[in-house]
Amino acid sequence: MIPDPERRKRGEAKFEELTGRGPDALRAALAGLAPDAAEYVVEIVYGEMYQRGGLDIKTRQIVTVAALAAMGNAQPQLRNLVRAARLAGWTEAEIVEVFMQLAPYCGVPVMMNGLEAARQAFQDLARSP
Amino acid sequence: MIPDPERRKRGEAKFEELTGRGPDALRAALAGLAPDAAEYVVEIVYGEMYQRGGLDIKTRQIVTVAALAAMGNAQPQLRNLVRAARLAGWTEAEIVEVFMQLAPYCGVPVMMNGLEAARQAFQDLARSP
Amino acid sequence: MIPDPERRKRGEAKFEELTGRGPDALRAALAGLAPDAAEYVVEIVYGEMYQRGGLDIKTRQIVTVAALAAMGNAQPQLRNLVRAARLAGWTEAEIVEVFMQLAPYCGVPVMMNGLEAARQAFQDLARSP
Amino acid sequence: MIPDPERRKRGEAKFEELTGRGPDALRAALAGLAPDAAEYVVEIVYGEMYQRGGLDIKTRQIVTVAALAAMGNAQPQLRNLVRAARLAGWTEAEIVEVFMQLAPYCGVPVMMNGLEAARQAFQDLARSP
Amino acid sequence: MIPDPERRKRGEAKFEELTGRGPDALRAALAGLAPDAAEYVVEIVYGEMYQRGGLDIKTRQIVTVAALAAMGNAQPQLRNLVRAARLAGWTEAEIVEVFMQLAPYCGVPVMMNGLEAARQAFQDLARSP
Amino acid sequence: MIPDPERRKRGEAKFEELTGRGPDALRAALAGLAPDAAEYVVEIVYGEMYQRGGLDIKTRQIVTVAALAAMGNAQPQLRNLVRAARLAGWTEAEIVEVFMQLAPYCGVPVMMNGLEAARQAFQDLARSP
Repeated sequence: MIPDPERRKRGEAKFEELTGRGPDALRAALAGLAPDAAEYVVEIVYGEMYQRGGLDIKTRQIVTVAALAAMGNAQPQLRNLVRAARLAGWTEAEIVEVFMQLAPYCGVPVMMNGLEAARQAFQDLARSP
Repeated sequence: MIPDPERRKRGEAKFEELTGRGPDALRAALAGLAPDAAEYVVEIVYGEMYQRGGLDIKTRQIVTVAALAAMGNAQPQLRNLVRAARLAGWTEAEIVEVFMQLAPYCGVPVMMNGLEAARQAFQDLARSP
Repeated sequence: MIPDPERRKRGEAKFEELTGRGPDALRAALAGLAPDAAEYVVEIVYGEMYQRGGLDIKTRQIVTVAALAAMGNAQPQLRNLVRAARLAGWTEAEIVEVFMQLAPYCGVPVMMNGLEAARQAFQDLARSP
Repeated sequence: MIPDPERRKRGEAKFEELTGRGPDALRAALAGLAPDAAEYVVEIVYGEMYQRGGLDIKTRQIVTVAALAAMGNAQPQLRNLVRAARLAGWTEAEIVEVFMQLAPYCGVPVMMNGLEAARQAFQDLARSP
Repeated sequence: MIPDPERRKRGEAKFEELTGRGPDALRAALAGLAPDAAEYVVEIVYGEMYQRGGLDIKTRQIVTVAALAAMGNAQPQLRNLVRAARLAGWTEAEIVEVFMQLAPYCGVPVMMNGLEAARQAFQDLARSP
Repeated sequence: MIPDPERRKRGEAKFEELTGRGPDALRAALAGLAPDAAEYVVEIVYGEMYQRGGLDIKTRQIVTVAALAAMGNAQPQLRNLVRAARLAGWTEAEIVEVFMQLAPYCGVPVMMNGLEAARQAFQDLARSP
């Protein structure tokens, strides 16, 4: 993407609103390697997609949880999205039930990977709500 | 699975409730080849998983749509689930927005495959609501 | 799934018969988080699918090993299934040769992931046969 | 791969032995586009991998069927391998049961894709056994 | 994404430059269903990512071809990208050789799917260069 | 594959030329478990595929990087190929830009997994160039 300071600001605010923390950890992880990749997430995902109407945030978070679990190569992102789903109002029990629902469609490993990400996200939130 | 007549009955009723039609087409497609596979869907998916509480049907359908789109090898099932999501109360615009939401996480092909399945499901419903 | 005490008992017995140990570790891993997910494995996988006839257990285990390796998001399950394949009568050399067979069809990473799971499962069995 | 006439001959013979027909259709499909790709299959897959000992052909075919089904992007190859599995001695019912076995591990779409490939392969064999 | 008329214009120009035709077919395919999805491709992919420096277009096209082939759920996009790779200066023989290179890493089905997309794209270009 | 001493020698030389180190680590990792799997890589990948003409090594390495990133189950191989891509002449910035290019086509997790492999490979090379 092409950096856009205004969009970045808007993305940072949405990132913080939805995850309860700013993009500092993301930026630190990519600093010195690929700073634009962090801004891709901040600007495109949070500065554009999450700004859209037509679907409430609570629904956006749970469908993203389901898709990341089904993809199978996205454990760190899945953990972050489970956290975001909790902050959007889904209960722990509901998120667990999503992975139960996916079991027959996606297979036991997707259910298990989802639950492992959930376990980590729930612990993260218990430590620093 | 092991056939269970009572569970089958319960599954058939839930199948019809959620898809607006019974499992006849599914059974016809597998007749003479793998009748137990049809009953696996009827009994395990509709006779057990969709009987569970803890998550409303509307949410179950949209997370399954998202997961099937992300899997990438499930176009016929995705088409059926988009239909079911419509029947559960999601609007066409909301379902389209789900695939927009998934684009940055899963990539353009997942968005496009999802929209193609949606186009077919919306036409199916327009023909025989 | 809907819990069924009789099916659970049958599943536990089959689980122990096929893996050489009961579902205690599985249940412990999911306790407090998603106990029903453990019972999904016990009841649906071991209480229903592995109860079916038409294919001997030895074949069931090796095709499941192949499929989990090809899926690519199932290392813990693959490790468990390699163990189960050994207990069903496949030799270490035969299991290794399965991953060689898959190499041209699935690519080198699938072969390597399969062999890594095999290495761990063979060590597990050497420690506690 | 680097073409090797002796290996090609060996591969052609094994190809015919295992599929009941030579690699003519494969070569025709790739003629004028990528003739080496056909020889990759003939030489590497049939001229090398299927020449190996340590695992009988019947097992090689069924694990390859399972892996191709799980991969999800290999319907034409899966159809060919189901055919080859039949020729190696697996019954139609056993092959169908393999896809039933995979259902809880890989999800309903993998079972359905496998059964669709099986239906086509069984029809191919009924037409020209 | 959030529509941005200037970015759209920039994206249209880049789209036409790289594919030899404007985004009309893409827009027509999504008209009445998901017009924003077409603009996501025009604005985000062509209006932002392909505007970036640091990697020449010829390289961008061939790595995208490789990635889409490996994903396995992106045949229409792969066909378009093979076309774009030809227009960026890769010869037919080089593109075919890319799929040969991927064979041992990704498996025979990825090679075959890639070659099928290439066959179609080469024919498209022969018809309307 | 069937071991071939001459091809093995040729493969070892190419392996060392392209990775800057011989296949000792690969062989050690598979010793006592699956020595033929190491030779599959040495002989088929380096003794045959990388011996082919029609595409320069620099291009072969970067398309393989893209494909392994998109596959999602190949982090160790991806790390090795990023290293090889550096040795073939790609700069760190160009490799990072490849993962940026893939983001809209494959999704954010593929970009992130690619960057993580890159970070590790760049550190490996900084330690022992």
